[in-house]
Amino acid sequence: MVDDCDADGQSGEIMTATSRNFDLNADLGEGYGPWAMGDDAAMLDIVTSANVACGGHASDPETMFRTLVLARERGIVVGAHPSYPDKEGFGRRRLGSTPAEIEHFVAAQIGALSAIGGLADIGISYVKPHGALANVAAAELPVAQAILRAARAADPALAILAMSGTVLEIEAREQGFTVYSEVFADRGYTDEGTLVPRGQLGDLIHDPDIAAQRILDFADSGLMPSASGKPLELKVDSICIHGDSPRALAMARHVRSRLLEQNITLRPFMSAS
Amino acid sequence: MVDDCDADGQSGEIMTATSRNFDLNADLGEGYGPWAMGDDAAMLDIVTSANVACGGHASDPETMFRTLVLARERGIVVGAHPSYPDKEGFGRRRLGSTPAEIEHFVAAQIGALSAIGGLADIGISYVKPHGALANVAAAELPVAQAILRAARAADPALAILAMSGTVLEIEAREQGFTVYSEVFADRGYTDEGTLVPRGQLGDLIHDPDIAAQRILDFADSGLMPSASGKPLELKVDSICIHGDSPRALAMARHVRSRLLEQNITLRPFMSAS
Amino acid sequence: MVDDCDADGQSGEIMTATSRNFDLNADLGEGYGPWAMGDDAAMLDIVTSANVACGGHASDPETMFRTLVLARERGIVVGAHPSYPDKEGFGRRRLGSTPAEIEHFVAAQIGALSAIGGLADIGISYVKPHGALANVAAAELPVAQAILRAARAADPALAILAMSGTVLEIEAREQGFTVYSEVFADRGYTDEGTLVPRGQLGDLIHDPDIAAQRILDFADSGLMPSASGKPLELKVDSICIHGDSPRALAMARHVRSRLLEQNITLRPFMSAS
Amino acid sequence: MVDDCDADGQSGEIMTATSRNFDLNADLGEGYGPWAMGDDAAMLDIVTSANVACGGHASDPETMFRTLVLARERGIVVGAHPSYPDKEGFGRRRLGSTPAEIEHFVAAQIGALSAIGGLADIGISYVKPHGALANVAAAELPVAQAILRAARAADPALAILAMSGTVLEIEAREQGFTVYSEVFADRGYTDEGTLVPRGQLGDLIHDPDIAAQRILDFADSGLMPSASGKPLELKVDSICIHGDSPRALAMARHVRSRLLEQNITLRPFMSAS
Repeated sequence: MVDDCDADGQSGEIMTATSRNFDLNADLGEGYGPWAMGDDAAMLDIVTSANVACGGHASDPETMFRTLVLARERGIVVGAHPSYPDKEGFGRRRLGSTPAEIEHFVAAQIGALSAIGGLADIGISYVKPHGALANVAAAELPVAQAILRAARAADPALAILAMSGTVLEIEAREQGFTVYSEVFADRGYTDEGTLVPRGQLGDLIHDPDIAAQRILDFADSGLMPSASGKPLELKVDSICIHGDSPRALAMARHVRSRLLEQNITLRPFMSAS
Repeated sequence: MVDDCDADGQSGEIMTATSRNFDLNADLGEGYGPWAMGDDAAMLDIVTSANVACGGHASDPETMFRTLVLARERGIVVGAHPSYPDKEGFGRRRLGSTPAEIEHFVAAQIGALSAIGGLADIGISYVKPHGALANVAAAELPVAQAILRAARAADPALAILAMSGTVLEIEAREQGFTVYSEVFADRGYTDEGTLVPRGQLGDLIHDPDIAAQRILDFADSGLMPSASGKPLELKVDSICIHGDSPRALAMARHVRSRLLEQNITLRPFMSAS
Repeated sequence: MVDDCDADGQSGEIMTATSRNFDLNADLGEGYGPWAMGDDAAMLDIVTSANVACGGHASDPETMFRTLVLARERGIVVGAHPSYPDKEGFGRRRLGSTPAEIEHFVAAQIGALSAIGGLADIGISYVKPHGALANVAAAELPVAQAILRAARAADPALAILAMSGTVLEIEAREQGFTVYSEVFADRGYTDEGTLVPRGQLGDLIHDPDIAAQRILDFADSGLMPSASGKPLELKVDSICIHGDSPRALAMARHVRSRLLEQNITLRPFMSAS
Repeated sequence: MVDDCDADGQSGEIMTATSRNFDLNADLGEGYGPWAMGDDAAMLDIVTSANVACGGHASDPETMFRTLVLARERGIVVGAHPSYPDKEGFGRRRLGSTPAEIEHFVAAQIGALSAIGGLADIGISYVKPHGALANVAAAELPVAQAILRAARAADPALAILAMSGTVLEIEAREQGFTVYSEVFADRGYTDEGTLVPRGQLGDLIHDPDIAAQRILDFADSGLMPSASGKPLELKVDSICIHGDSPRALAMARHVRSRLLEQNITLRPFMSAS
C-alpha cells in the first residue's frame, strides 16, 4: 500500500471560515517506466487539481508527458510534486539530505516537469512536496525555505499547496507566496491539529461515509473534529484524497459524490497557468 | 578517455567569412556525485562558453549547481548539454529512443538545468546536444526536430549551438532559432566537411601546435583543410575544445594562448542571459 | 501492455516427440520498488517454473527476496531472468551493448539473484534471458556465448531455458549445458519455426481456447501449426505463458485448466536446486 | 576528497600481540562508468588485499570486471566492499534502511561481484562493509547480523574484515566466521579505542612519516597511542590505507616503503580463494 498524501505537520492557525467551495487534490503520475500506480485517468475525473510526480519518488519523462496531457485534456490544474530522489522507497524515507541538496534536487524536479509541461501545453501552477520531504518541510524551517527557494528559482509565479499550520505553509505566506491549505479526508487529527501518526489509534479513516461526512460538517462549521472530538479551526482550500489503490479510488469517488449531493462546489483553488 | 565534443554530421554550407573573433566552447560539469571529469575550474579559465551536462550522460543537481556557480563567477556563457540518459556509457551509445522519447527527456534535462540556474543566478543561453545524441541529430531530421521542440518548450529564447552543415543546424535556422556554428580544433575533416570518423586515419589532431595553426589559418582564410588537403569553407562562431584529461587541458591551453598571441579576440558568441 | 516472454529466434530442430508432461513457465518478480507488475502470487499457483527478474529490466533486492520466498513456499523451480539494464524500457530495447558488456552484467544479475536465493533458502536452477536480450541471443552467436559464459561463471550447474531452434539453444547444447526448450501458447509461428514478429498478422493468439487447443494438439502430435497451417516439429519441455495483465492471467488460468482436463501432467522440467 | 576506509566503532579488545607481518588493504574499483576514483593500478602495486566496490556506493559490472582482472594479475586477495546503494553520496550517508533491506542489498552486491569474479577467474575471499554502512555495522547489532547473514548466504566461506573491537567484529567471531582485524594508518584514536570523529582535533594524520612511525611502533609494542597519548592494545591483521587522491597515494607509498625498510613483511592476511 502506498499512501503519501500527507505531512505530519502542525496546524495551529486560528480562523473560522465556512466554505461551500473546495478543491480536490490527489497525487498523480506516480508510475515509472512500464509500471503504473493507481488509475490516473479515473482519478483525473474526480479531482480538480493534480500533484504530478516529477522524477523523485516516481515518474520519468514519458510518464510526466502522458500525465500532463491527460490533465490538460480535462482542464485539471497541475502542481509539481517533488520528493527525495528515492524511487525504491517511493519517497517515503528521510534520506538525510542537507537543505542545500534539497534545494537543488527540488529545483531540478520542478524544472523538468515545467519544461515537459511546455511540450504538453500546460503550465505548472503550484508546488506540493511529497511524502517524507513534505513531513520534514512541515516541521523544519531550513527545509521549508529550501523548497521555497527552489520553487521561486524554477518559476516565481508558483503557488504553494501545504497542510494548514505547517512550517512550510507559514513560511510560504511570510515570504509572500500564494499559499493554499489542505486537509485530509481520510486522516485523523490530534488535538493540536497535527495528523495522528500512522500506526496510532485514529490515524486512518477507512469508512468512505465517515470521511465524506467530516468534510461536509467542516463545510458547515469550519471546524474539524480531532480524534478525541475536540473541534479544530482549520483553513482549507483543498481536500487531499488518495487514489493509488482500488479501495482508495472508491473512497475518492464516494467523497466526491457526497460533496456534490450536498451542493458543495468542486473547483480548482486557482486557475490553470 | 572520454571525448565527445563532436557530431559526425555534414558541413556543406558554402560561405567565406574570415573572422578575428571566436568563441571557445567546451563540455563542462561532467562529473557525477563524488566523481570528477577533467578540471572544470581550469577549463572555465580557458573557454568563453560552457556546455553544461544536465543529468543525461553526467551530472546531478549538486554538480550542476556547483558548475553553474563557477561559470557565473567567471562570466562564462552557459548552454545546456543534453544527452541520451546513459551515465555508464557517458552518452556515447545510441539508445534507440524514439523522437518522442528524445523530445521528453531533452526537455526534462534542459528544464532541470534552467531551474538550478535560477538558484545559481545564471541563465541558460543555448542548447548543444552531447555525444551520440549530437551525432544522431546531425543526420536525422526527426531527432533534430525533437531537440528543437524540447528547447523551445523549455525556453523559447534558447539558441542552438551546432556543427556547421548538420541537419540540426540547418533545421534550427529554418525554424528561426538563433544558431551558432562550431568547428573542432582537434578533429580532422573529410572532403565533404564531415568529421573523419574516430578510428580512421586523420580522425584526431594530437599536436597542439598543428591544432592551433589550423584555427589561425582558418581565421585568415575562412578555409579549413580537409584531411586530404582540400580547403573547406565553414561557418564558425565557436571552436570546440576538449579538457577532460590532462593532455586535453594542455591542448586547450595551447590553442587559447596561440590564438591570443595572434590577436584573435576570444569572446562568447552571445551575451549571457 | 508488457509482454516479453519471447525470442524472435529460429526453431529448426527436427524431432517428433509427443509428450503428456509439460512445464509451464512465466516471467515473475517483475515489480520494482513500490510498483507491481501482474499478480505474482496468482501466477505462482499456475506455473511450475518461474523466470525471476534480477534487477535488469525489473526488480530490486526487496522484490527478488519476496518473489523467491513465494516461489519456495509453493515449491516452484526458479530461474534467473537477466536483461539489458533498462528499467524504463522494461528490457525491450536493444541497447547496443557489446558481448563483453553483456557477459558482465548478466553475471552480475544472476549472481545477485543467487545470493538472495541463499537468504530465501531456494536455489536458482536455470537461466532464461529476457526481452530484447533474448531476441539478440536467439540470433547472434557472440551474445549467446556471452550469456553462457556468464551463467557458467555464476554457477556451473545452471541449466538454460531457450526457445527451440534458437542460436542460444543450439550453442548451449553444444557446450554441454543442460538445455530445456520452450514454445509459446499465445504466439503464432512462421513456416520456418520462428515467431511471427509482433505487429504482423498472426503474431498473437488472443483466444484462450485456441491457445489451449494448440498445446493439446501438439501434445498429441508433436506438431505445432504455423500461421499458414504448416505443421512444425518442435522440441518442447516447457510452455511459456504470460500473466502480466488481468487478461493474460485469465489466459494462463484457462490454458492450465484445459491441459489438466485432458490429463496433461504439469510439472517442472527439472527439480529444484 | 573521498575517504571512507573507516568505521567509527569501538575497539576494546585487550590483547598484546606484536607482529612483524601485516596485510595492507585499501578500497579499490571505486570508479563508475566513465569516471575513475584514484589510481587502481598504482594502488594494486602497494596493497596486499583489495576491498572491491560492488555496485553500492560505486562501480558497475564493467568496472568490477576490470578491477578483478587487475587484482588477479597481481595476485592480490580481494574482498567485497558492499555499501548502502547511494552512488551520489558515495555510500557515506545513512539511508535508514531496515536490517532486512540491508541483508538483501548486501547479498545482491556480494553475489554480483562473486559472479563477475568467476569471469575474471578470481575468488572473493572476504567482506568489508563500506562507509556509512560500516559505521552502522560497527555499532548496531541487527545491522552487523544482517551483513553476516548476507555474507553467509552469498558464500559460506567468506571471511570478515572489520575494525578491532566493533560490534561487527565481535559478532562475526561469535558466529564462527574467520575474522581479520584492521587499524588505520592515518586516523587518530580516542582513549576508548574508537576513531576520533572526522572534524575533531586529531581525526586525521596528515604526515606520512608520523603515520608510518605509528605502525612501526605498533609492530614493536602491540600498542597504538590514542590522540591523548594513552597506549591502546589493538588486534591487527591488516592496515587500512587510502589511495583515492594523489596525496593519499603518496601517503600509501610512503607507509609501505617505511614498513619494508624496517623489515616488516607485507602479505595478505589470507590466501586467495
